[in-house]
Amino acid sequence: MKIGYIGLGNMGSAIALNLVKAGHEVASWNRSPGKDEALVAAGARRAASPRDAAAGAELVMTMLADDRAVEAVTFGEDGILAAAGDAIHVSMSTIGVACAERLTEAHGPGRFVSAPVFGRPEAAAAAKLFVVAAGTAEALERCQPAFAAIGQRSFAIGGHPPQANLVKLCGNFMILSAIEAMAEAMALAARGGVEKAKLLEVLTGTLFSAPIYQTYGAILVEERFRPAGFAAPLGLKDMNLADAAATASRTPMPLLGLLRDHLRAAIADEGEDVDWSALAIAAGIKRGAISGPGGM
Amino acid sequence: MKIGYIGLGNMGSAIALNLVKAGHEVASWNRSPGKDEALVAAGARRAASPRDAAAGAELVMTMLADDRAVEAVTFGEDGILAAAGDAIHVSMSTIGVACAERLTEAHGPGRFVSAPVFGRPEAAAAAKLFVVAAGTAEALERCQPAFAAIGQRSFAIGGHPPQANLVKLCGNFMILSAIEAMAEAMALAARGGVEKAKLLEVLTGTLFSAPIYQTYGAILVEERFRPAGFAAPLGLKDMNLADAAATASRTPMPLLGLLRDHLRAAIADEGEDVDWSALAIAAGIKRGAISGPGGM
Amino acid sequence: MKIGYIGLGNMGSAIALNLVKAGHEVASWNRSPGKDEALVAAGARRAASPRDAAAGAELVMTMLADDRAVEAVTFGEDGILAAAGDAIHVSMSTIGVACAERLTEAHGPGRFVSAPVFGRPEAAAAAKLFVVAAGTAEALERCQPAFAAIGQRSFAIGGHPPQANLVKLCGNFMILSAIEAMAEAMALAARGGVEKAKLLEVLTGTLFSAPIYQTYGAILVEERFRPAGFAAPLGLKDMNLADAAATASRTPMPLLGLLRDHLRAAIADEGEDVDWSALAIAAGIKRGAISGPGGM
Amino acid sequence: MKIGYIGLGNMGSAIALNLVKAGHEVASWNRSPGKDEALVAAGARRAASPRDAAAGAELVMTMLADDRAVEAVTFGEDGILAAAGDAIHVSMSTIGVACAERLTEAHGPGRFVSAPVFGRPEAAAAAKLFVVAAGTAEALERCQPAFAAIGQRSFAIGGHPPQANLVKLCGNFMILSAIEAMAEAMALAARGGVEKAKLLEVLTGTLFSAPIYQTYGAILVEERFRPAGFAAPLGLKDMNLADAAATASRTPMPLLGLLRDHLRAAIADEGEDVDWSALAIAAGIKRGAISGPGGM
Repeated sequence: MKIGYIGLGNMGSAIALNLVKAGHEVASWNRSPGKDEALVAAGARRAASPRDAAAGAELVMTMLADDRAVEAVTFGEDGILAAAGDAIHVSMSTIGVACAERLTEAHGPGRFVSAPVFGRPEAAAAAKLFVVAAGTAEALERCQPAFAAIGQRSFAIGGHPPQANLVKLCGNFMILSAIEAMAEAMALAARGGVEKAKLLEVLTGTLFSAPIYQTYGAILVEERFRPAGFAAPLGLKDMNLADAAATASRTPMPLLGLLRDHLRAAIADEGEDVDWSALAIAAGIKRGAISGPGGM
Repeated sequence: MKIGYIGLGNMGSAIALNLVKAGHEVASWNRSPGKDEALVAAGARRAASPRDAAAGAELVMTMLADDRAVEAVTFGEDGILAAAGDAIHVSMSTIGVACAERLTEAHGPGRFVSAPVFGRPEAAAAAKLFVVAAGTAEALERCQPAFAAIGQRSFAIGGHPPQANLVKLCGNFMILSAIEAMAEAMALAARGGVEKAKLLEVLTGTLFSAPIYQTYGAILVEERFRPAGFAAPLGLKDMNLADAAATASRTPMPLLGLLRDHLRAAIADEGEDVDWSALAIAAGIKRGAISGPGGM
Repeated sequence: MKIGYIGLGNMGSAIALNLVKAGHEVASWNRSPGKDEALVAAGARRAASPRDAAAGAELVMTMLADDRAVEAVTFGEDGILAAAGDAIHVSMSTIGVACAERLTEAHGPGRFVSAPVFGRPEAAAAAKLFVVAAGTAEALERCQPAFAAIGQRSFAIGGHPPQANLVKLCGNFMILSAIEAMAEAMALAARGGVEKAKLLEVLTGTLFSAPIYQTYGAILVEERFRPAGFAAPLGLKDMNLADAAATASRTPMPLLGLLRDHLRAAIADEGEDVDWSALAIAAGIKRGAISGPGGM
Repeated sequence: MKIGYIGLGNMGSAIALNLVKAGHEVASWNRSPGKDEALVAAGARRAASPRDAAAGAELVMTMLADDRAVEAVTFGEDGILAAAGDAIHVSMSTIGVACAERLTEAHGPGRFVSAPVFGRPEAAAAAKLFVVAAGTAEALERCQPAFAAIGQRSFAIGGHPPQANLVKLCGNFMILSAIEAMAEAMALAARGGVEKAKLLEVLTGTLFSAPIYQTYGAILVEERFRPAGFAAPLGLKDMNLADAAATASRTPMPLLGLLRDHLRAAIADEGEDVDWSALAIAAGIKRGAISGPGGM
């Protein structure tokens, strides 16, 4: 399949390489140069612009930092839209619902698919991502060979692309909610003299056997918030996107509000470079056992 | 093993029967009569009082509704303490930390074990409970045959009994936190036109594969809050116990506060007989898709 | 009027002295001795027990620390009830609604009045308290001479005594809510380079001219949280009483939850001796102006 | 003084008329025609565009709905900046901090003043507004004759214009916080059988004597949320601006989060046309007295 590919960060590079390995014909572009050497060595073509990457392609896949970056490669005289072919733009970035609405409208029916992914860079490298896709049935069908090359499973959410973005934001909200819940529980337990590791052993050994609790539980027990696997400001950005969607649809989300406050506090007090799980610090995970009344 | 057994509600009866089946010599007592027929038929002795049940026993196990009920069978002239033997009181009820402190002090070192359990009545019947126990090493050792007869696994939390109660409260807090998070995510998704079942499929198919998400996720999707598996007022009682522990140890727990508010609202608006997962109604799960700006 | 008077703390002593000065015949009792010298010098009789203070009195007024203290002087063989006269028990303490229910029931209709007060010790000394009273119309009528001697105004809330306690708890909740709101606003302003004192000047100079904003606003601007005018643990105790009432009536109160969390955090981090306004620290009032993006 | 004036909504028309009455030479413009008849009759000139209104003026005052509207009249070939005179742009609208930053930069030092106002349309008509202004000392000095014509008092916040916007947002946050606190207190009181009007009488008669409590307290007691004095979506817009500032400066504001959630819920459940005080409905003000346990 002829695929234009834009955005060669950690995630993007790993995904693009899997596309090449799977035999797709990839033309790649990245705003900052020098990120595409491995990819080109593996057989990709270096495109001169987003427009060039899109020219003649069946799919143009983008994996970028935020709304602004995706719009920057889409619009304008060197943008994807200017290529004027019949490529489908497949946006894998975690962007806002309103931005996805604008892109859907700009591309027209059937020419835009939102396909954000779940998984960390290692999962991307191992082609083990989960792909959450929305768009017309025909468009999703055309994307299958690409999705198969990069992930272990894809989910078809619905016919309107922004719905996939909403699901992705919900997923990140759920992860952070689980971290917050663990952090508060560990804080309470620790204040009462129960070791955090002991609480985690019970939780993951009984009802909370999902990997998310094991991975982040260990981070909380060790208070290992640096280096960031996913930096707190990026987590805050995603929660802000969820908040914007909630504002637009008049949906109260008090737990989301709590997460955003704790992220802000963690960044204010710990710095911009901590992991998003550092919201646990704002949830009080560093307070030790109490020695007065209420202690054990 | 000679075991006194007090409290024959849904959970208690199932546990007691497994003790008898495992060959233990059980003397049982229940405040309201008529709950022990199956148990007596299986070979248990009907005791005349908590004191009688405790007389000559190695363990006295209690499974009761709340702090007050456990104290009622412990103190007084017909209480467990009045038996004056050397039985270990094994309290499996979900009681407060302060109550467990009082019981620890009243029984003396090594004669009280807190051993609350995780699992619904079906798990109790199948001897598949998780037992979370704290007490002196010797006391926990003596309890092992009983724990083996009723559960699939037991966890030793520490030497001070109230610590097990704290862990149990943390566990229930975690369950309700997961329900709240799902409810808010589903509310947001549904407002934006994504079916709740679709969101759940993605969550449980990717990062949230733990049973808790499958079980409660299905309840939320179907909005099936009656009949109650665990009634909202009981859930509120447990969250109040967690709150009391948090107050005593000066531990802020904003997510706990949110859960308590949503339980109150659900009970106020829906009635005392709904399941504790009905806090999802207060989290807005019944608001449908929006049709104006912000909708899709 | 013959008045028994129990409880000679800061508030209680000032109130009792005003009763004596107004010509009432006061018999006083306090658990710890040595607090009544000024009062006796002014003409009060030293009673031997709560029962003795109540004997032959028209009113028995109590001003004590908490539920337990009020119940301790009411019940038992030396308690107010044992005096078996026809005195009305006028409880001015900030106690819980459930405790006030028990006292109402124990005393019988018309023999118990809840009359908590608003005002700091200086207001008590100046006979400028606000009295918030509930009880039968006849009972309230009989209390008027006493209320006139201690306060600038009294409010009749209703016929059922616990209602006055509920109003008192609401008042304290309102005060702390105003402090929290100011603290968050000042934190936001300060992060953006606006001096806290400047913000306060605008608020109190425009819409928020009430004394509460001036008094506590100055404390927040100066970050003067010691010595405590009203200690944080006492504030937390009152908010816990409000929370208990809210739990009993299934009333969600998210702002109350927030206040309780911030009080807990302030006590955990700053110590048990800070003023209740130190919840402003938990609200972030000590974070300075930001110097990166978002700063001014 | 020669003043260009842009934005003739309820507030804007009243302000402009006071400028004319005070003898200033006003050239006015409004996007929708037909709003300026009274003003022109009073002596104002009808300008052809924002640029025309600004031409030759000493001040150009804008009073518009939101960020976008202010930017629309500032930039572009018919915008204020295109007039290329030495007018000072005085922005009275409630806009965001980031927008005020952009305007400050676009106009250059000394040529932009943020001067949002407190007061409802009646206060505007009576020239009783409070003006909260920030900008260079010289610029503020030049604005004084205009401020004197429209308000009862002006506050100089600082040298950097966006600081005044931050103070305005803080003020609106404070108002809504007071409403939320009253609503929760009234809900608790009402559940316990205390009339809301009675609680309000105590509050405003003691510590909460500020007009804000009287005005909004009466609205809450009467549950009179229509017609809107200030519509809930506009209130939500302002709280979103405060939230954006808090995100930018990494300031946790849990009470703000709560207000935003309650506004969203009120709009979702009651419609877009309710007053912003309808957040009290989400705070539970319509739940009546409880009749079971916990009631009185």
